[in-house]
Amino acid sequence: MSGTEHVEQRLRRLLRDNRFRPGERVGSERALAEQLRVSRSVLRRALERLEAEHLVRRAMGQSGGVFADDGKIQRHLNTVQGVPDMVRRQGLSTETRVLRLELAQPFPDERRALEIDETAPVIRTVRVRYAGNATLSLDTSVLPARRFPGLLSENLDGSLYALLTEHYGLQIDRAEETVEATTADARQAEMLEIPQGSGLLEIYRVTYDADNWAAEYAHDFFRADRTRMHMQRVGTNWKRSRL
Amino acid sequence: MSGTEHVEQRLRRLLRDNRFRPGERVGSERALAEQLRVSRSVLRRALERLEAEHLVRRAMGQSGGVFADDGKIQRHLNTVQGVPDMVRRQGLSTETRVLRLELAQPFPDERRALEIDETAPVIRTVRVRYAGNATLSLDTSVLPARRFPGLLSENLDGSLYALLTEHYGLQIDRAEETVEATTADARQAEMLEIPQGSGLLEIYRVTYDADNWAAEYAHDFFRADRTRMHMQRVGTNWKRSRL
Repeated sequence: MSGTEHVEQRLRRLLRDNRFRPGERVGSERALAEQLRVSRSVLRRALERLEAEHLVRRAMGQSGGVFADDGKIQRHLNTVQGVPDMVRRQGLSTETRVLRLELAQPFPDERRALEIDETAPVIRTVRVRYAGNATLSLDTSVLPARRFPGLLSENLDGSLYALLTEHYGLQIDRAEETVEATTADARQAEMLEIPQGSGLLEIYRVTYDADNWAAEYAHDFFRADRTRMHMQRVGTNWKRSRL
Repeated sequence: MSGTEHVEQRLRRLLRDNRFRPGERVGSERALAEQLRVSRSVLRRALERLEAEHLVRRAMGQSGGVFADDGKIQRHLNTVQGVPDMVRRQGLSTETRVLRLELAQPFPDERRALEIDETAPVIRTVRVRYAGNATLSLDTSVLPARRFPGLLSENLDGSLYALLTEHYGLQIDRAEETVEATTADARQAEMLEIPQGSGLLEIYRVTYDADNWAAEYAHDFFRADRTRMHMQRVGTNWKRSRL
């Protein structure tokens, strides 16, 4: 067994025995090298192998170091963030494919969510998101067409939020969101290139601007095997919530 | 067909055609009775039938009325709230069964989460929550034993947060939480009385008090067929989060 292989095995044992959870910081490269009494270069080669298996992830910078990983994308629920940014920040390449883009009359639920009447057309787009060359999510966004003139001829294969913010001056204030677990039907399975019945996280979201106008009504499906939601809940008033 | 049955069918059609989402307000009883041109008493009998099927839910009070429903329990993620309160507020009875309660040495992940060393014992409890006579979740809570003396002999078949707050003066400040979708293994299936492979929402949570001490490390599994997460995300700074 080479020195790298030996260190790799010791790292695997360290991760397992200490029950590190994905996203947890294992330590700095320097501290790990000292702990295992190996050189930084041998440690790095071992870490590279584990990184290829998504067992660890290395991050640069002040809060960087070696983190336990399982390859899932962390979706932070405390801020409204577009999928491409979210994926890129975790070191993966990202791509968006537009499956459908249409101007249409709103369905009743779309009218209620966007607070528009039946004469107000909507732009409806269905897109598949890729992260690191595999599918991540299937997203449907419905927008009030009059609010975003010319959007139909824009390029929607990137961040919709970036486009709406930069081209239309949208100021996102908040989003109301629900999350449920469900399984992929035949159509979703095909578009996400996963077996039918695979686990999905189903999200409904209405995004509001600073003037409290509903700007987007979204219905997204994230692959359960690739997604973890992360959030901070504020609980100072938990007692009040019992009344 | 009786008058009630006829009204019941019209209500079903109204819910379906308008694509009401669970939790959405359909209207007041008065407005619905006027819309369908029926008496309040006939409407109520029809609503009672739909309520028994979890297609609608009626709520009293100013923000009350008739709501579309699917029988799922809404878990609000913006505040830290115990399961019994959450269930009761949605009009269902609730029960907690303690499957395990032990004083033990902490596992490595418990030590890191609670920021204690290996000599500090923990109280570990596994409980099943019931809502409306069926299982809802399987919850494991780990607490630093020295912080909560005598907890082992307390009654844990209610809200743990209520107990910690009222008996130990705990002031919950915030919780860090992750949510993933997974499926039930044989053990979980048995305890939750569901088929193996059923969908579950898996939650890890660390709850902190006002002094930033970790007070609880929790690992919960909620039945996917009975749970919807609901939250409000604040997005004013979404641009900042791209940097």
